[in-house]
Amino acid sequence: MAIEGLKDVVANTTSISSIIDDVLTYVGYSIDDLAEFASYEEVIYLLWNRRLPNQEELEKLKEDLSEHARIPSDMVHYLKGISLNHINPMAAARTGVSLFSFYDRNADVMTDEANYLKAIRIQAKISTFIAAFSRVRKGLDPITPRKDLGFAANFLYMLSGKVPNELEEEAFNKALVLHADHEFNASTFTARVCVATLSDIYSGVIAAIGALKGPLHGGANESVMNMLKKIGEIENVEQFILERLANKEKIMGFGHRVYRNGDPRTKHLKEMSRQLSALTGNTKWYDMSVEVEKIMKVEKPNLPANVDFYSASMYHALGIEHDLFTPIFVISRTSGWLAHILEQYENNRLIRPRAEYVGPDKQVYIPLEQR
Amino acid sequence: MAIEGLKDVVANTTSISSIIDDVLTYVGYSIDDLAEFASYEEVIYLLWNRRLPNQEELEKLKEDLSEHARIPSDMVHYLKGISLNHINPMAAARTGVSLFSFYDRNADVMTDEANYLKAIRIQAKISTFIAAFSRVRKGLDPITPRKDLGFAANFLYMLSGKVPNELEEEAFNKALVLHADHEFNASTFTARVCVATLSDIYSGVIAAIGALKGPLHGGANESVMNMLKKIGEIENVEQFILERLANKEKIMGFGHRVYRNGDPRTKHLKEMSRQLSALTGNTKWYDMSVEVEKIMKVEKPNLPANVDFYSASMYHALGIEHDLFTPIFVISRTSGWLAHILEQYENNRLIRPRAEYVGPDKQVYIPLEQR
Repeated sequence: MAIEGLKDVVANTTSISSIIDDVLTYVGYSIDDLAEFASYEEVIYLLWNRRLPNQEELEKLKEDLSEHARIPSDMVHYLKGISLNHINPMAAARTGVSLFSFYDRNADVMTDEANYLKAIRIQAKISTFIAAFSRVRKGLDPITPRKDLGFAANFLYMLSGKVPNELEEEAFNKALVLHADHEFNASTFTARVCVATLSDIYSGVIAAIGALKGPLHGGANESVMNMLKKIGEIENVEQFILERLANKEKIMGFGHRVYRNGDPRTKHLKEMSRQLSALTGNTKWYDMSVEVEKIMKVEKPNLPANVDFYSASMYHALGIEHDLFTPIFVISRTSGWLAHILEQYENNRLIRPRAEYVGPDKQVYIPLEQR
Repeated sequence: MAIEGLKDVVANTTSISSIIDDVLTYVGYSIDDLAEFASYEEVIYLLWNRRLPNQEELEKLKEDLSEHARIPSDMVHYLKGISLNHINPMAAARTGVSLFSFYDRNADVMTDEANYLKAIRIQAKISTFIAAFSRVRKGLDPITPRKDLGFAANFLYMLSGKVPNELEEEAFNKALVLHADHEFNASTFTARVCVATLSDIYSGVIAAIGALKGPLHGGANESVMNMLKKIGEIENVEQFILERLANKEKIMGFGHRVYRNGDPRTKHLKEMSRQLSALTGNTKWYDMSVEVEKIMKVEKPNLPANVDFYSASMYHALGIEHDLFTPIFVISRTSGWLAHILEQYENNRLIRPRAEYVGPDKQVYIPLEQR
């Protein structure tokens, strides 16, 4: 019998992250501690090496990322020459990573050293590329990453041309930390199935971006923002939600296949959304989100707010275009994908399930002229 | 307990192809009949519609493919401007399909009509793109596809500039038919996992190309050719094979995870390889292949020659560069990937297995300065 969606099938072991009794850990560290104390670069190191770095190791990682953050000028030139307005930024991210491999003469070398460098290149360049895409489609020139800024600050800087303030940097860093890994989610599993043929790292990350692009996976935070825009004003929240629920429609940003009693990442993003909204003086979207959550708690206590719900108003408060919400998820989750790809290589076996054939049987071929 | 490689896990139902008791069928039609009688276009129609076309329907499909076979001149221009010699043609194919989506304003539209057109565009353009890539890297101009040639003949024409003779066309058509689908092989499964997030068709095909790129999957026919070149002369075959087997090394092109008593596709490719080699007057690689198979039959009767084994000498006899063998597999298998992606959409469920966590537990976060 077919196991649809591979529900509850344990597809492999992992040492990278775990979700046990609603607690999310990266390599055994609680997500709450990491969100509170760690930089995204520390988390990258943790996921790739399965231990936290000391100061020297962290410095080395930062230098490596900085050294490989620039993207080829040919790529920018090509982007400038075509019409970008109708291109989905997720398709751009997927294509961008595929193009990176054209400029990497070791793209197919499978030594640990070459694979580490590929991981660095992808992790560093994806952030620069997404910011460049956003600027070029507005008719602006891309901004070169700065060596004196951390990963989170650099992205916001390359996007807007403004060095972010402390709260903006903290909020964006937390978002990157919180989205970095999540066990065998659909995009991570896609990457593992892809590279279990011993394909290269670029192919694995590209496959994962394609999966994250789907609305059942990465697209949810943008959908939350669309819902908030549709609601329009805080006075409309109750009626909107109750009507939707009465029509058995889905409310974006609530519920999760794996968590029963709540997503441990939500509270951190909620707090950052609150602080950022207060700072900007525009608390409308945050207040509306709180109201939506309040009503959902009463109406659907089994569907608590998930990671996507408050990231929407938080990214909006950071001034980020709504269709970049999922590409930002890419930037963060890339660290987890890379960790899982490297782990898959360590003890690889081709992932090749079977199918149950339910189509027609013993068909007789009739020549075309007689059909 | 983790089920490594999802071995024998039945991941879903399918009506597209089946492998039962070493018999391969597409929608219930034996692969032997299809290899003998069907054009690749008929097989595309069969896989996508789960029935064979009548003449009118086949004509319509051919017209649709022909209409969408050209690739954007921007892409060719970009290829001409960068160094292509070190680029893996599989990375090129993966990037090419990703770029196709930039030129498709309905790339994210999920209606049946839009999805059919996406399938047509990808199937038509991938062949043109791979031929163009091959020519541009040789410093030649790409060749525009001809409306009066079938799919198989067109590819050979765009590659060499010469319209193939009847036997060449027949052989290449058979290769396309025989590689078109194969149940839940690793690349097809990658595509299904990817689009089960309701991601778009481009993303699914790109993920699949990435998987096929791996040496445990699509790379085998090129490896067979490399092995034959290494053997060098027919006199060396016996010693080479016996030495390899004594060292417990793998012989490329033998054995298959699913077939027990032989791969039903092999005999067709063997016969085509024989005829083509006779036609060219150079039977060296075919004769060596026969000799390798003869020795393997004695030494390893449980590892019969698979689909990759005779496709190597056959593609070589067609004058095709060796690093295009796997991209040709892409051209053919694209029809199967597209069929499986469309089938996945029909009754979709997110594919999201679990992992067994075996990493460290309850780690205490120590501040960076104290590490």
